[in-house]
Amino acid sequence: MRILLVGASGTLGRAVEAELKPRHEVIAAGRGSGSLRIDLTDVASIQSALQQAGELDAVISAAGNVTFAPLEAFKPAPYGESLHTQGLADKLMGQVNLALAARDHLRDGGSITLTTGILSEQPIVAGSSASLVNGAVEAFVRAAAIELPRGLRINVVSPNVLTESMPAYAPFFRGFEPVSAARAAMAFSRSVEGAQTGQVYKVY
Amino acid sequence: MRILLVGASGTLGRAVEAELKPRHEVIAAGRGSGSLRIDLTDVASIQSALQQAGELDAVISAAGNVTFAPLEAFKPAPYGESLHTQGLADKLMGQVNLALAARDHLRDGGSITLTTGILSEQPIVAGSSASLVNGAVEAFVRAAAIELPRGLRINVVSPNVLTESMPAYAPFFRGFEPVSAARAAMAFSRSVEGAQTGQVYKVY
Repeated sequence: MRILLVGASGTLGRAVEAELKPRHEVIAAGRGSGSLRIDLTDVASIQSALQQAGELDAVISAAGNVTFAPLEAFKPAPYGESLHTQGLADKLMGQVNLALAARDHLRDGGSITLTTGILSEQPIVAGSSASLVNGAVEAFVRAAAIELPRGLRINVVSPNVLTESMPAYAPFFRGFEPVSAARAAMAFSRSVEGAQTGQVYKVY
Repeated sequence: MRILLVGASGTLGRAVEAELKPRHEVIAAGRGSGSLRIDLTDVASIQSALQQAGELDAVISAAGNVTFAPLEAFKPAPYGESLHTQGLADKLMGQVNLALAARDHLRDGGSITLTTGILSEQPIVAGSSASLVNGAVEAFVRAAAIELPRGLRINVVSPNVLTESMPAYAPFFRGFEPVSAARAAMAFSRSVEGAQTGQVYKVY
């Protein structure tokens, strides 16, 4: 398969590339590195990356930024001024727009795989925007799956905090059992190389 | 209790008012009717309605608009141009902003109750934006609950399609077992008059 991997240089992206590269052609894309540049907050950049990538059987997002801040720092504010703006524009609508663009670009029977995380179900302090965004992406994937044309599939991988991220994030995730990026990457393989659609693959 | 009910004139809102009015002071608010006017997409309007309402023990939203359209009509587009914009601005950020404003306004121990719907879990054709928004609100509520100050609580009621809505929506909800607005209203009573927080009360 020819697979476009967005966020290939991240901790999770590198593991996904390592998992899929032995069997497939993986085209690495990222905001500041990779063979293709893509910024999920910029629709033109998404369209351009897909055009440059050419024919594809799978599009994977292992990318998406969101703002972590205590709930008390979130004030009632419109889009653009709210602390939710980054999550809405990047991890949520960036991934949704990537999925919609992939819908129009993938070969028949191709797949789309997005990334969320355990905060959709299990909250942490300062994680309310991440929870909001992850919950939105997971529900969108369940819904989009039943309307995709041409045998296209869509799933999302929701990993626990990554072992590799614990040096930085451990104080926020006390008591969570981290999973290795390599283990989380297996769920991307399941999505791309399996046949299910509308699934939230939890790697807890 | 003094309860501000946003969306009081809707099918669900009227049932919530009927459930709570015998025991509490319910202040009806809505975009075009009610004793207070409120537009969830306008932060100044939210703040103004709370100020006019005065001291409150509970804030309920039985409101929120979202765009229903086939997935194929959704194009990759930035906020403001996407068909997701109404859902993001109204049912999602409108309710989130109402909750954040209520956090700063409610009496100690007060409660916030938002509304989603079954589409967060069970999709229908043309409902991808509603699913996205409902999933976002439910995950936000779970997360906000663990950080609210002063003994404040937050829950969300997620009803199945309402019996009263079936004349208009039946073709989109074939096979769903509708619930009466009166039954859905009981979940709002549970949220306001109970003691739980971070709950998604499903009325399926």
